Amino acid sequence: MKKIAVVMGSISDWPTMKLTTDLLDQLKLPYERHIISAHRMPVQLQEFGQTAADQGFGVIIAGAGGAAHLPGMLAANTVLPVIGVPIESHALHGMDSLLSIVQMPSGVPVATTAIGNSGAKNAALLAAEMLAITEPTVTKSLKAFRAHQTQEAINSEQQF
Amino acid sequence: MKKIAVVMGSISDWPTMKLTTDLLDQLKLPYERHIISAHRMPVQLQEFGQTAADQGFGVIIAGAGGAAHLPGMLAANTVLPVIGVPIESHALHGMDSLLSIVQMPSGVPVATTAIGNSGAKNAALLAAEMLAITEPTVTKSLKAFRAHQTQEAINSEQQF
Amino acid sequence: MKKIAVVMGSISDWPTMKLTTDLLDQLKLPYERHIISAHRMPVQLQEFGQTAADQGFGVIIAGAGGAAHLPGMLAANTVLPVIGVPIESHALHGMDSLLSIVQMPSGVPVATTAIGNSGAKNAALLAAEMLAITEPTVTKSLKAFRAHQTQEAINSEQQF
Amino acid sequence: MKKIAVVMGSISDWPTMKLTTDLLDQLKLPYERHIISAHRMPVQLQEFGQTAADQGFGVIIAGAGGAAHLPGMLAANTVLPVIGVPIESHALHGMDSLLSIVQMPSGVPVATTAIGNSGAKNAALLAAEMLAITEPTVTKSLKAFRAHQTQEAINSEQQF
Amino acid sequence: MKKIAVVMGSISDWPTMKLTTDLLDQLKLPYERHIISAHRMPVQLQEFGQTAADQGFGVIIAGAGGAAHLPGMLAANTVLPVIGVPIESHALHGMDSLLSIVQMPSGVPVATTAIGNSGAKNAALLAAEMLAITEPTVTKSLKAFRAHQTQEAINSEQQF
Amino acid sequence: MKKIAVVMGSISDWPTMKLTTDLLDQLKLPYERHIISAHRMPVQLQEFGQTAADQGFGVIIAGAGGAAHLPGMLAANTVLPVIGVPIESHALHGMDSLLSIVQMPSGVPVATTAIGNSGAKNAALLAAEMLAITEPTVTKSLKAFRAHQTQEAINSEQQF
Amino acid sequence: MKKIAVVMGSISDWPTMKLTTDLLDQLKLPYERHIISAHRMPVQLQEFGQTAADQGFGVIIAGAGGAAHLPGMLAANTVLPVIGVPIESHALHGMDSLLSIVQMPSGVPVATTAIGNSGAKNAALLAAEMLAITEPTVTKSLKAFRAHQTQEAINSEQQF
Amino acid sequence: MKKIAVVMGSISDWPTMKLTTDLLDQLKLPYERHIISAHRMPVQLQEFGQTAADQGFGVIIAGAGGAAHLPGMLAANTVLPVIGVPIESHALHGMDSLLSIVQMPSGVPVATTAIGNSGAKNAALLAAEMLAITEPTVTKSLKAFRAHQTQEAINSEQQF
Repeated sequence: MKKIAVVMGSISDWPTMKLTTDLLDQLKLPYERHIISAHRMPVQLQEFGQTAADQGFGVIIAGAGGAAHLPGMLAANTVLPVIGVPIESHALHGMDSLLSIVQMPSGVPVATTAIGNSGAKNAALLAAEMLAITEPTVTKSLKAFRAHQTQEAINSEQQF
Repeated sequence: MKKIAVVMGSISDWPTMKLTTDLLDQLKLPYERHIISAHRMPVQLQEFGQTAADQGFGVIIAGAGGAAHLPGMLAANTVLPVIGVPIESHALHGMDSLLSIVQMPSGVPVATTAIGNSGAKNAALLAAEMLAITEPTVTKSLKAFRAHQTQEAINSEQQF
Repeated sequence: MKKIAVVMGSISDWPTMKLTTDLLDQLKLPYERHIISAHRMPVQLQEFGQTAADQGFGVIIAGAGGAAHLPGMLAANTVLPVIGVPIESHALHGMDSLLSIVQMPSGVPVATTAIGNSGAKNAALLAAEMLAITEPTVTKSLKAFRAHQTQEAINSEQQF
Repeated sequence: MKKIAVVMGSISDWPTMKLTTDLLDQLKLPYERHIISAHRMPVQLQEFGQTAADQGFGVIIAGAGGAAHLPGMLAANTVLPVIGVPIESHALHGMDSLLSIVQMPSGVPVATTAIGNSGAKNAALLAAEMLAITEPTVTKSLKAFRAHQTQEAINSEQQF
Repeated sequence: MKKIAVVMGSISDWPTMKLTTDLLDQLKLPYERHIISAHRMPVQLQEFGQTAADQGFGVIIAGAGGAAHLPGMLAANTVLPVIGVPIESHALHGMDSLLSIVQMPSGVPVATTAIGNSGAKNAALLAAEMLAITEPTVTKSLKAFRAHQTQEAINSEQQF
Repeated sequence: MKKIAVVMGSISDWPTMKLTTDLLDQLKLPYERHIISAHRMPVQLQEFGQTAADQGFGVIIAGAGGAAHLPGMLAANTVLPVIGVPIESHALHGMDSLLSIVQMPSGVPVATTAIGNSGAKNAALLAAEMLAITEPTVTKSLKAFRAHQTQEAINSEQQF
Repeated sequence: MKKIAVVMGSISDWPTMKLTTDLLDQLKLPYERHIISAHRMPVQLQEFGQTAADQGFGVIIAGAGGAAHLPGMLAANTVLPVIGVPIESHALHGMDSLLSIVQMPSGVPVATTAIGNSGAKNAALLAAEMLAITEPTVTKSLKAFRAHQTQEAINSEQQF
Repeated sequence: MKKIAVVMGSISDWPTMKLTTDLLDQLKLPYERHIISAHRMPVQLQEFGQTAADQGFGVIIAGAGGAAHLPGMLAANTVLPVIGVPIESHALHGMDSLLSIVQMPSGVPVATTAIGNSGAKNAALLAAEMLAITEPTVTKSLKAFRAHQTQEAINSEQQF
């Protein structure tokens, strides 16, 4: 099975993006994590995008905040699916991150998730769902994950 | 290869979502198109979500506007990847559609694209990218599509 | 008299929705409280919506945050009046919750209240007002409640 | 059965609010329509609010735009349920109307619907749902209305 | 000289509106302060608006938050100039207060100031400026106030 | 009686600001109209602000759009009351104009009206209300204006 | 004197960006115009950014809309000053373009102008101002341009 | 080499604008810092703008919050490039500051940076980039600064 790249623009995004890798660990999916700043490491960004498929990646998850160009520019350099996680920014609370990531022009898509922690967790699930299209074992893991979270919700209802 | 479901909440969404199916046609990817209103056909929505994988679908694309619940509720009923297209609404120009689709709670992801036409086209490309993870012919189609659009952009620069 | 259902998407909504049940207690109105996650318990959501009238409910109050689909999807499954309370979300402070709840398409209404605590309290009053249409004792309770709060306001003016 | 008041702030709101009365006609529900400007007719507003119950009204629907004070001020003068319809305003497209109506302080609720036409139609349905709590014939009408619109949606799917 | 009314919707607005009265004290202008809730004391609101001129008021300052109807409804009941101060609300930070106050329909004006503390202070200055149109002593006070604040700014520059 | 200055930043603001002067004509109040661009005529702006009181003006009305600095900079140069009218801008529909005018820091107030036409009309009424504080004839005109518009609203209700 | 690069993401941006080149023509400043799509021509973008200084450019003006990454990614590849023009986008009217351009992280600046036509014209003036720091003839041109526009504003006041 | 003016509207902006001067210190660029309130010191503002070039300034950096008129009014009084830094305001988190600064009308540009700290730092870099157009030593400093920050980003990736 192909591995997942978890890329972020800065070490300051790690507290959010760790939620992504924690969930990938839980789902026992192979991944690598990288810091690639779109604006400080544009050469490395381009190289990573261009070689990601050959490095064995199947999906890229990219988290960035503010004028968040990382997910879109990775998508511009690959035909692998790119999932964008809008990091919650300081002044505008991630609305700038969200619009910078989701409003891509036609021709180069980014699969955008929610602002902040929920988006980081869901990026892991979304990557898993993509791999699961042809990996029944991942489908099985996802169904178990969902069944578990449904059961937890039912439990909270029953103990309410 | 698994097929793609292109679902919309109302026939009024068709002018936007036709851009999705046009691009799927161009990429020669198998798909079905459906109208399933989250609020008028909740039983059918649930049934579609629960049986989509068994019907041979690999990816679901769902377009909806306003308080857009279709993508998220389909996602709640399947572990297939669901791509949400925020239809441009009248009063709020799709900002309501976007937030209703992208701000999913952790546990149930929706891969959100841009508001309106760009998002509808990119939903097709994103679905193709997901299938391409294990389908080299789709990767080849996508690379050709990208090379063509890059060449068109270069041409517009050269003729400028 | 029919009872009121107070439903929330998650136990994390309880600190807000407890303001609803506190006010229902004060008004001595019969209610049940439930946790039904739209995205984690879609089957239970549908069943609850479809059977609510037969269970003796007259009004449903539903609180949810972010991409808040619970009130609208309950409304899709019943003709009981559904009151939606937008829970204050983290990044966008409930603007996402508000738009996800209030911007319902024509055909399936949700009676939306204010974001957060005020909305939770007013949902209880609104439910009471609905029941009071044909229940003079509830009208009497509401008038007493209003008279009391008017007197408190007048007192704060007089002691100012 | 009690009648419904359909109130609007200005004759300019009539093209929107006529969608409310059209739907009430279709549901064969008794109503009166009124123009009461919160800012130009404050005395009449107060009198209407204070006497509405005695006039035989069971529900009030109030449409207003911009700094939309009509629904909230009617609610301040009655314990009848008040449904607020945010009229789509010129510059801000109804966002001002929506916030002026929905963000009521605790103690005086307004049941808010969507901005513009969808909200006007849903206000009629919501009023019907409130009356239906104790009027089985209205419940029957609403179920027929819903069944019809579900069938229309299914038809559009089948003919798609 | 006519006196100024400083009205607020709730005792919870006092920490903001105290900045108004502090500045009026500093300018030695006559005023009264009142708590009049638009939604809890609509009868008192109307009476106050209708009698304010006869009570000797020349200007009304009204602070309110959320769906802030107090300034506009006072304006609807008087031809005295009404200054509206948008109190900073919890979830939406006063954007709801601002739009509810400033977006008045033509025919009934409210002179709106900034959200929160700056707006409360400036309401006092604005009331003074209105009275100063025909009161040279107030003009003199205002010029002294301005000269002082200009000198303070110049001092902060010189000591920088 | 002192006269009113109606100032706008550009001839392109005239279609909006003509609504101000039309209403001043109707109220038979003395005024002058001026075009003073804050950014193209900063010297003239300052001179106008500094000499406005000596020129016999009692109130200044200033309309501007986008990064609308005219009202605030006039206010910085005078202690006359300045009324700011946010002109509806192209891309952001006057939200930029509104925030640029209303969010003044403490110490220098601007009395802000609604975006666009309603705000332009209300600026005239507000100026009249300020002058009326000590001019009983203007109060009489304003009461007649209000009585007329109330009667028109009542008529539209009666003919409805 | 160094020349100015006027870059845009797509031929569809030309109607806006032509206002930039028209003003550069009027100021007789040397420039080249280019179409470089950030997402369709990422390789060319990077090469252009890296070689712009060596090609004799002194300033780069970049216009882009939606998730507008062109200005920021050019800035990431050069230390020439980059001026970003937010093109007015369809659904969100350029608010997405603005936030995607202006909210750059510390370390890589973009000098952002207004959304749409005003921003395109001002980008030309800003580039001229930058070159004028050490080019007295450009300062002279700019002063003449300003004097002319001030005179036009004064004329419109005098003929008003 | 010409010096840089770092101007702010109030001492309360200094914690943000100190990031600008810290970076100018680091780049060893000559600057002066000033407090000039647009609204409290309009005469000084105008004089500073008009004489800035003659005082030897080559670039002006101006930070302001709320209805932020300082950068635009400085730009109205000079043809030096003016960089505007939107200070993060209390209620609206700098969105008011941003729109008040960036939405300048055509004819008078302001080079706007991000809200708050990032914008303050980038203002220093942008000023340096402008001076560097004809100052190879500044270009060298900027390239060293960029190389260093790229290396730091690479290091954080390598130690990740």
